[in-house]
Amino acid sequence: MHATKELLLEQGLAMLLERGYNDLGVQAILDRTGVPKGSFYHHFLSKEDMALQAVDRYLSFGHELLDQTLAPDDRPPLNRVRGFFEQMRELYSAEGYLGCLLGALGQELSGANEVFRTKIEACVASIARRIAICLEEARARGELPADVDCQRHADMLVNAWEGAALRSRLLRSPRPLNAFLEFYFPSPAGE
Amino acid sequence: MHATKELLLEQGLAMLLERGYNDLGVQAILDRTGVPKGSFYHHFLSKEDMALQAVDRYLSFGHELLDQTLAPDDRPPLNRVRGFFEQMRELYSAEGYLGCLLGALGQELSGANEVFRTKIEACVASIARRIAICLEEARARGELPADVDCQRHADMLVNAWEGAALRSRLLRSPRPLNAFLEFYFPSPAGE
Repeated sequence: MHATKELLLEQGLAMLLERGYNDLGVQAILDRTGVPKGSFYHHFLSKEDMALQAVDRYLSFGHELLDQTLAPDDRPPLNRVRGFFEQMRELYSAEGYLGCLLGALGQELSGANEVFRTKIEACVASIARRIAICLEEARARGELPADVDCQRHADMLVNAWEGAALRSRLLRSPRPLNAFLEFYFPSPAGE
Repeated sequence: MHATKELLLEQGLAMLLERGYNDLGVQAILDRTGVPKGSFYHHFLSKEDMALQAVDRYLSFGHELLDQTLAPDDRPPLNRVRGFFEQMRELYSAEGYLGCLLGALGQELSGANEVFRTKIEACVASIARRIAICLEEARARGELPADVDCQRHADMLVNAWEGAALRSRLLRSPRPLNAFLEFYFPSPAGE
């Protein structure tokens, strides 16, 4: 990717997480990055185009984390799932506990914007599907009851995480994220 | 309350839930309600003032529901807590599954707006405190383990509900709310 586009996406993503979509103008992104307006519109059709690509970038990062944390290895599958959420917590920590971009834009925009509503739902669902596959492995190994609906349980986990991320954003604190990990995954990922 | 102010708050609340804060202009509220601009500014100092009062109105409604559903009666305390969330689901249903105003404004605004961040956190915390009191009752009656931290458990429930409400908003569906009720409160509130 072109370095300027990379810079615009990186900073655009950070500004979307902080200020949301409707409060963010293209000019503010230009001011922060020092990129001229013509260059922005060379790389993006519009602010919406930039934001949708920022969501793609965020999702790609999420799936890379899923690749790293859920990959079959010696650890029990549930510990790998815990490991994914622990890595997300590390990411939130680095950002000052601003929560999740999918939750933030999903809440702000999905009441009146079908493009973002369907986009964000597809992103959240894609993460839940990955987790469901790992839960299936846990069920096959007897670590979850045989009658558990793994897709449903994965969606429940992802939804509860999004709620914890919102509360973390409200409090600017890891406490709700830690409480999530302790409630749903009582044993640490390393064990 | 003056009927015009009541109308502005009622419609303003509905528009905030649908469109969020930054996408909503005072003119759009005037257009929907037919109220003249001078009248809006007679009742409210600003859009922010209106939105903060809409949040107060929403919270008052939530506490009325808590009064009705959690009041000590013959039902086990956990069933009363479930009853509160069931009533919230009914409210969301009536609105077409747009989720929770506290979650929506909390996500949109709390990254860059300290007024709304502290306001919304105080609202969410006030609901969790009410639920914690009912959980204490459940613990005293042996319906929860003696070592459970009721405040922490109440916060976990409220956070998980907020995540379910977000997913319900993304899907325009009660499914995530139903999954929440079934996971955290396996027995129906009426039993």
